[in-house]
Amino acid sequence: MDLLVTLDANYLKPLRVMLASLFYNNAHRAFTIYLMHSRLTEDQVAELAEWVHARGHRLEQVKVNEDCFAGAPVLFHYTVEMYYRLLAWKFLPGHLDRVLYLDPDILVLNPVDPLDGLDLDGYLFAAAYHDILSINEINRIRLSPYKIEAYYNSGVLMMNLARQRERIREEDIYRFVEVIKKQRTKLIMPDQDIMNMMFNPEIKPLDEKIYNYDARYYQYYKLMSGGECDMDFVIRNTIFLHFCGKKKPWKPNYGGKFHVLWKHYEKMAFG
Amino acid sequence: MDLLVTLDANYLKPLRVMLASLFYNNAHRAFTIYLMHSRLTEDQVAELAEWVHARGHRLEQVKVNEDCFAGAPVLFHYTVEMYYRLLAWKFLPGHLDRVLYLDPDILVLNPVDPLDGLDLDGYLFAAAYHDILSINEINRIRLSPYKIEAYYNSGVLMMNLARQRERIREEDIYRFVEVIKKQRTKLIMPDQDIMNMMFNPEIKPLDEKIYNYDARYYQYYKLMSGGECDMDFVIRNTIFLHFCGKKKPWKPNYGGKFHVLWKHYEKMAFG
Repeated sequence: MDLLVTLDANYLKPLRVMLASLFYNNAHRAFTIYLMHSRLTEDQVAELAEWVHARGHRLEQVKVNEDCFAGAPVLFHYTVEMYYRLLAWKFLPGHLDRVLYLDPDILVLNPVDPLDGLDLDGYLFAAAYHDILSINEINRIRLSPYKIEAYYNSGVLMMNLARQRERIREEDIYRFVEVIKKQRTKLIMPDQDIMNMMFNPEIKPLDEKIYNYDARYYQYYKLMSGGECDMDFVIRNTIFLHFCGKKKPWKPNYGGKFHVLWKHYEKMAFG
Repeated sequence: MDLLVTLDANYLKPLRVMLASLFYNNAHRAFTIYLMHSRLTEDQVAELAEWVHARGHRLEQVKVNEDCFAGAPVLFHYTVEMYYRLLAWKFLPGHLDRVLYLDPDILVLNPVDPLDGLDLDGYLFAAAYHDILSINEINRIRLSPYKIEAYYNSGVLMMNLARQRERIREEDIYRFVEVIKKQRTKLIMPDQDIMNMMFNPEIKPLDEKIYNYDARYYQYYKLMSGGECDMDFVIRNTIFLHFCGKKKPWKPNYGGKFHVLWKHYEKMAFG
């Protein structure tokens, strides 16, 4: 399976933990990881590549030059990296029809095999939205007047690259961002917000409990599922466990329900 | 390394989870597991043996006949199984000088190698006591007038079998229990209580954070260590994580800090 990750040096450690969990729970298959970045050093990339190769997988660097986004408007304090997920189709090899994008603050708990057969016909992305009242409502209101049925989380994205190459135009995205700028719409996560505002009807919804389980809401998922989505369910069914929000398991004083599991995979990744 | 476990059918599942964690974190060594029991069926033992052998380890059955304890007084509703840990030296092969007893409600998180060199000279057991005010004080008061410096937990015991064969007499234990019976001392965990009352000065103390970390007290350990004993410490240093108390991670509605890790190893054990 082909994977896409985009990050700077601050996320190299969580990335390795994410990959350790992916490899461990998918021992039956091989991955090619496309590492899209602009600011990692050669040594950093080489060290990661060696680690990935030693585990039987491939790492391909997609080095992005800042010039590539010469025409792109910059929004507030955000860098052009906000465009990586929206324009990855421009930079990835043309033979790739689809790629799985993953945030580095994720643990992969089960085989990714169900994604192989995912039908993406007519969609640009497949993603999950967090059906938690506060998250969805706040974002719907925040991003109005854009009609957002569901506010998708962009931490796990199955990208239909073939269709994106046909349908997404770089200039459209830039023009849209210029409009946003003038409207003074407050963006919190610019790439995620833009994806939701521009492409909402062309995103295929995935089950969040399987494909983008928000690690902050264990009690909520359990309650809303009538007890079915308990710890047993998560460990046996959830594929992507996502440490959303500002508190991260690699930071001091993190205290979430899945802390010890992240630490377990961290030890696996770094010995 | 030689291991001793004693259990009935209710604990076969947790035992396998414990062993899965032991094998995973000790891939460099082989174990012989002595399974001391009286009530498991041949099928149950055979199934466990097959699972253990398939992972490159040995299982030896130590079938105990109830007649073996013909002279033993029975205390309240307890069965003669309360004597297993105290009299294991009688039933284990004579060539064993030491054995590591482990409760099945334990996860093994790190290599057990530090126990190889443990000096047991002059001691019957090595064990940890939980230095938590409430646990230690309550038990000291409860078991007075017996002088108990520390109330050791018998879930992890390094047994000096050679010395036990010399020093412990079956009749002494039985006589002691008869006295207890007359005194109406309230025993809560009879084998643990008796070990503490009879042998307290001959138990070598082990660091509980390494050898018998009580899974209920994460915050307490962290606080009392000035923050040093955090999740990172546990995952990298703790060898035996013990799910003490009535709430167990395999029961519904368990909600402890290490729940997800137990579930992780459960999946490893049972697929």
